[in-house]
Amino acid sequence: MFAVTILGNNSALPMHDRHPTSQVVHYDEHLFLVDCGEGTQIQMNRYKIRRNRIRYIFISHLHGDHYFGLPGLLTSFGLNGRSEALWIFSPPRLKEIIEIQLEASDTVLPYPIHFVAIEKEGLLVDEKKITVSCFAVNHRIPCWGFLFREKNKPLRLDGEKLRQYAIPSSFYQRLKMGEDYTNSQGELIKNEWLTLPPDPLQSYAYCADTLYDANIAAKCLNSTVIYHEATYLHDQQDKAMNRMHSTSIQAATFALNAHAQKLLIGHFSSRYETLDEFVTEARSVFPDTDLALEGVTYLIHS
Amino acid sequence: MFAVTILGNNSALPMHDRHPTSQVVHYDEHLFLVDCGEGTQIQMNRYKIRRNRIRYIFISHLHGDHYFGLPGLLTSFGLNGRSEALWIFSPPRLKEIIEIQLEASDTVLPYPIHFVAIEKEGLLVDEKKITVSCFAVNHRIPCWGFLFREKNKPLRLDGEKLRQYAIPSSFYQRLKMGEDYTNSQGELIKNEWLTLPPDPLQSYAYCADTLYDANIAAKCLNSTVIYHEATYLHDQQDKAMNRMHSTSIQAATFALNAHAQKLLIGHFSSRYETLDEFVTEARSVFPDTDLALEGVTYLIHS
Repeated sequence: MFAVTILGNNSALPMHDRHPTSQVVHYDEHLFLVDCGEGTQIQMNRYKIRRNRIRYIFISHLHGDHYFGLPGLLTSFGLNGRSEALWIFSPPRLKEIIEIQLEASDTVLPYPIHFVAIEKEGLLVDEKKITVSCFAVNHRIPCWGFLFREKNKPLRLDGEKLRQYAIPSSFYQRLKMGEDYTNSQGELIKNEWLTLPPDPLQSYAYCADTLYDANIAAKCLNSTVIYHEATYLHDQQDKAMNRMHSTSIQAATFALNAHAQKLLIGHFSSRYETLDEFVTEARSVFPDTDLALEGVTYLIHS
Repeated sequence: MFAVTILGNNSALPMHDRHPTSQVVHYDEHLFLVDCGEGTQIQMNRYKIRRNRIRYIFISHLHGDHYFGLPGLLTSFGLNGRSEALWIFSPPRLKEIIEIQLEASDTVLPYPIHFVAIEKEGLLVDEKKITVSCFAVNHRIPCWGFLFREKNKPLRLDGEKLRQYAIPSSFYQRLKMGEDYTNSQGELIKNEWLTLPPDPLQSYAYCADTLYDANIAAKCLNSTVIYHEATYLHDQQDKAMNRMHSTSIQAATFALNAHAQKLLIGHFSSRYETLDEFVTEARSVFPDTDLALEGVTYLIHS
């Protein structure tokens, strides 16, 4: 399963029982945490996130509504006896911010943290079936989007051809990896005669706080699902521009430019008590838009 | 009104819908914030705390469950356009911790913060009707209790004597402040003939994370209400000692030694889902004990 659970969908001022930004991306048994606003660990309790499965945390930028929940989460991991290493990818100063707080509380965590400073676009994590890379977005301070992309999907087997060439089932796994087969008569049976192309690679692009910027869409082209911030409704376009945020319509235009299959919008300003208008506006441009609602898990691919 | 509202009553690991430590002390129009665990600003929304009235914040110590909500609260004050100065009393390193986070987010708050480093016991705030002082408690890192104490209460007027000496009501305020009266015949009428002693001075003592220590009770003798941590039940006395926390019975013994009128207990370990046993145990030693429950305002004096 490839999916994302929303833990916080509000912008900086928590309000209307909405929380600052945080999401958990699920891929099979992996959990990846993206941003960690204040209260994230409490939201994890509420929504039964199996937090010990998190090995990688990605912090888009150092505005507090995207990381003020991190010191508490890291401390709680320690109190719960975590021993597995944790990797935190973020702009450079986060390491210093966390370390000074651990030092002031005389805390030695029982697990290692590897802080990885993001300073340029590129690959961050390369797991067996999925990679995570970062790309620059356009905000008031350095800010990064994250692209979760499947890799190395196996070739699909063509059942009819397998029977025709009498391939033993013990060889199927090697066929899926691209090997040719040689039968007992010494005849070479080419892989391409027996297999079909892999299923398409699915991907999730998280476009954190950012101005609408068409150039960024090229960096997450053909994503299965894109999350794009939509802090304001369309009539607040000037305010969005001034504060280097986006509107509902801009988020939808972005998804259209990126040829996404589906769009999630979030990071709603606390000025909005209800959210219906966001999805109405966005769908007028990009029909397959949903609100990123807290506690909801959105499927990227089953 | 002199009262305290509990915003968080749990120890370090937020759990069972309980939150890390935070309290608001009310005195007339003043609000004082005591500790600020993660999620305090969200609890303030939930319980309708008029946060702009807060001028003074007191942080007992630099374990995260007592201040990880502070960066978010300070940022939100800024986003809400606060301009009034704020004073923060805490162990010394908090200033550096906050400033590095503001700097990393390129945030300039629209109001001044005065950081006051607590390094010895003594007076912190001296307002017209109330003082706040700090006293050392006994924890793993430097940790402070806070004593809120009324001052300068007016003398009470003796109605019968006022009539007997024919004192004009225009002079009542000056009598309350202790002045003598001279009537139109030039006769001196002494203040002490006309007034009764002031109402007793009420006080609230907040005893943050601490070992049970009978010497500390002497520092908050005769408090109207004492809050004392009770992280564990009596059967975990050894664990309490090791972690430099207290049990229900120890908190109650403390209140007894301090001749308090009433005891509030809190900072419950997340190992306890229900809390009844805490109050049962404590009341066996000090009957006028209540659980410090989130969202509840406990009257210190009407």
